[in-house]
Amino acid sequence: MARVKDYVDTQDFTKEEILDMINLGLLVKENLKKGYPLNVLYHKTLGMIFEQSSTRTRVSFETAMTQLGGHAQYLAPGQIQLGGHETLGDTAKVLSRLTDILMARVQKHESIENLAKYSSIPVINGMSDYNHPTQELGDIITMFEHMPEGKKIEDCKVVFVGDATQVCASLMMMITKMGGHFVHFGPKGFQLNEHFQKIAEENCKKSGGTFLITEDEDEAIKDADFIYTDVWYGLYEAELSEEERMKIFYPKYQVDMEMIKKASKNVKFMHCLPAKRNEEVTDEVIDSDYSIVFDEAENRLTAMRALLIYFMDKQEETIEICNKNLGK
Amino acid sequence: MARVKDYVDTQDFTKEEILDMINLGLLVKENLKKGYPLNVLYHKTLGMIFEQSSTRTRVSFETAMTQLGGHAQYLAPGQIQLGGHETLGDTAKVLSRLTDILMARVQKHESIENLAKYSSIPVINGMSDYNHPTQELGDIITMFEHMPEGKKIEDCKVVFVGDATQVCASLMMMITKMGGHFVHFGPKGFQLNEHFQKIAEENCKKSGGTFLITEDEDEAIKDADFIYTDVWYGLYEAELSEEERMKIFYPKYQVDMEMIKKASKNVKFMHCLPAKRNEEVTDEVIDSDYSIVFDEAENRLTAMRALLIYFMDKQEETIEICNKNLGK
Amino acid sequence: MARVKDYVDTQDFTKEEILDMINLGLLVKENLKKGYPLNVLYHKTLGMIFEQSSTRTRVSFETAMTQLGGHAQYLAPGQIQLGGHETLGDTAKVLSRLTDILMARVQKHESIENLAKYSSIPVINGMSDYNHPTQELGDIITMFEHMPEGKKIEDCKVVFVGDATQVCASLMMMITKMGGHFVHFGPKGFQLNEHFQKIAEENCKKSGGTFLITEDEDEAIKDADFIYTDVWYGLYEAELSEEERMKIFYPKYQVDMEMIKKASKNVKFMHCLPAKRNEEVTDEVIDSDYSIVFDEAENRLTAMRALLIYFMDKQEETIEICNKNLGK
Repeated sequence: MARVKDYVDTQDFTKEEILDMINLGLLVKENLKKGYPLNVLYHKTLGMIFEQSSTRTRVSFETAMTQLGGHAQYLAPGQIQLGGHETLGDTAKVLSRLTDILMARVQKHESIENLAKYSSIPVINGMSDYNHPTQELGDIITMFEHMPEGKKIEDCKVVFVGDATQVCASLMMMITKMGGHFVHFGPKGFQLNEHFQKIAEENCKKSGGTFLITEDEDEAIKDADFIYTDVWYGLYEAELSEEERMKIFYPKYQVDMEMIKKASKNVKFMHCLPAKRNEEVTDEVIDSDYSIVFDEAENRLTAMRALLIYFMDKQEETIEICNKNLGK
Repeated sequence: MARVKDYVDTQDFTKEEILDMINLGLLVKENLKKGYPLNVLYHKTLGMIFEQSSTRTRVSFETAMTQLGGHAQYLAPGQIQLGGHETLGDTAKVLSRLTDILMARVQKHESIENLAKYSSIPVINGMSDYNHPTQELGDIITMFEHMPEGKKIEDCKVVFVGDATQVCASLMMMITKMGGHFVHFGPKGFQLNEHFQKIAEENCKKSGGTFLITEDEDEAIKDADFIYTDVWYGLYEAELSEEERMKIFYPKYQVDMEMIKKASKNVKFMHCLPAKRNEEVTDEVIDSDYSIVFDEAENRLTAMRALLIYFMDKQEETIEICNKNLGK
Repeated sequence: MARVKDYVDTQDFTKEEILDMINLGLLVKENLKKGYPLNVLYHKTLGMIFEQSSTRTRVSFETAMTQLGGHAQYLAPGQIQLGGHETLGDTAKVLSRLTDILMARVQKHESIENLAKYSSIPVINGMSDYNHPTQELGDIITMFEHMPEGKKIEDCKVVFVGDATQVCASLMMMITKMGGHFVHFGPKGFQLNEHFQKIAEENCKKSGGTFLITEDEDEAIKDADFIYTDVWYGLYEAELSEEERMKIFYPKYQVDMEMIKKASKNVKFMHCLPAKRNEEVTDEVIDSDYSIVFDEAENRLTAMRALLIYFMDKQEETIEICNKNLGK
């Protein structure tokens, strides 16, 4: 059994546990790419609750369940209401009897915490207004696949450019936990807040990583191995108008070729997508060889498979099957 | 083949046929709990038509199909319209060619009757404004599992408290058919109507059961083995405002610990859910050891599996497989 | 591999390739009717993008994937937006990483062309404002099944009656490509336009077929082997009001028993459905023995299976399995 029942926040897990998830994801990916079918979640059901719609998260979870022999049920916004007709606790208890594992994309982080608390089955956080842990796992897997030669994650400098969205916070939590060097290059008022700074500090103390929040581009970008950005229009609440966001972020925080040139010469560009092209990133960058955004999108699927297997307690069985298939 | 093609109304079936469905449900549940996969509906498709949305009914049908090796298609409210773009008869005939079995939650009972009439494949009623037969089957299975020691269903007193919803009518039809003792404890104007009283009478004549409709709490609750309630706000039409319903039902028809104490000392509390806590039932009761509402929710799934297998004519094959798996 | 990656327009394929698809469809249908399961798309995912809702297309694709061992994800109108939050190209590239094959029902034909262009996986056109090629394939398969004795498709006269919808255009493209004799019997202003007339001409030059557009009923209907019609209210844009359409089409272009009597005595009546009964076709005709509309609806499924197998490059494997199962 997973030590912690639910995947609500990567802070609940040790570096070693996260390494297990990463390796599990990479192994299953290799197994499937080589054409060996898996049925470790045979006839199992994932209930997917979406309070907000999503393409990548929904499609990757649903494909993952199919590839593992199970099925994902899509409960669209409006079809199920957490804390509407009935208490969230009652919904959690009922779904625990009718499905095998749950994921939810929620408006408020409290909802995913309560869903996990009241469910007797595992619950995976498919993004809240606080964090986006499945994105974190997909992203770190992508970095492992595109690791600069001779480096380990502990040697990497990862720079998030722009607004301190959930994706920014999540990336910080993952990188500092793994012992890497995280920078948030963003304007005052849109930087990671004290709560997150404290987490970064604690993570770094344990892991040997570092973190920095700065408005100084040269300091931020110098020697960066990965540059990451996200949309500027805000997510969930307090969405910014186009005029407002351009005034705040443009042109300084746009990832363009000039910024890329200031980084390590093998720097990789990442984005959780969807992108607002020519706002936070230029076409030239996102379509260049520096860009690994579609590999990153594919690794949403890699992450979902790993998480489903890990929290359904099929890790050992899966490793055994894959190793046998792959002759390891 | 099932003698009757469709499961529109349990009144269409004999007590023996219903016992067959109950036993089938319990056997398949035991088989799956012990980890033996089933594929009796391998690659089959259930078309699910929802004119009104539903969590429990939809999720339990969809999970059931996955567990049996098939797939359920969710046709959400608005995605398919019975008698909209085309006649209901044309829809029924087309879906009979493209799927293997249908279920529908409909606004008007006439729609499910017509869907059954024009379809060449089996049709299951997922609730109408008249009845809720899949709930009936799940409920009777739950009673079988929680049968008071030394009793049979024919010995049980089952009391429905509150508004004569479809669930109330359905519970009455099931209990009186099976030979049990049914009481509707509800206020005048919200009691089972003459049509249902006539059904109750005829059922009891055949089965040896009894039925009573009363406003007298002591008479109703005394020696009750099962107390059942449902929301007060009405379903489908003529929904009551909170003020209206409180005036009519509160406090007399609220299931609270005081009422529970008047029943058999091993009384079980049931509710089809969703519950409006502290209206029709207090937190104290629904969260107590008397409450079997989540077992009841789980048995929606038990019922769906039984119905899908029964009406797809896989009963014998399934019994054989399960008995072999379980060494019976 | 299919010579052309995508099924956007049957004009992209040779007569021989279309015959391959027809034969593949018929073989798989026979195999499944005889109860032999297939798993040629085992654990594969079809992404279904619907910019407009549809019953027949969605249900038949989803059932087809289940029957072939895979799964279809339903991305409903509003859940995914081609060219909304992100560019269509980005959506295409992301979905190419997360699914195995795509289908889309689009508002504008340009969208399906671009989806095919930017996707690295196969894309199937589930109807655009230009054509409806999956309907074409199902229809020609239905004609093969109901071929008049002693005739081949090259000997058949196929008459489309009424408005030049996408279905009319598609039927023309299929029939003229296959070498049959196509007539559009419709009023001026609602006849196939010059673009389509040119395609018809070129197709006939190669295939030996003929085509005619006429307002003369006797000339149109005489010796017809198949009479086909579609709704009069227009599809996608410029929908006609009931008053307008009746004025234009009624009674001359209604398929009634009188019109049927003017055709070949074994004429078959076809309609893509949904039908507006007693507008474009009378109850008497659609419910008569001349009508093959429900066989036609079932062959949507036959076509979807063939297309999924063909474009997923599983044609040879499937033929081998089916022939072995059927002792051919």
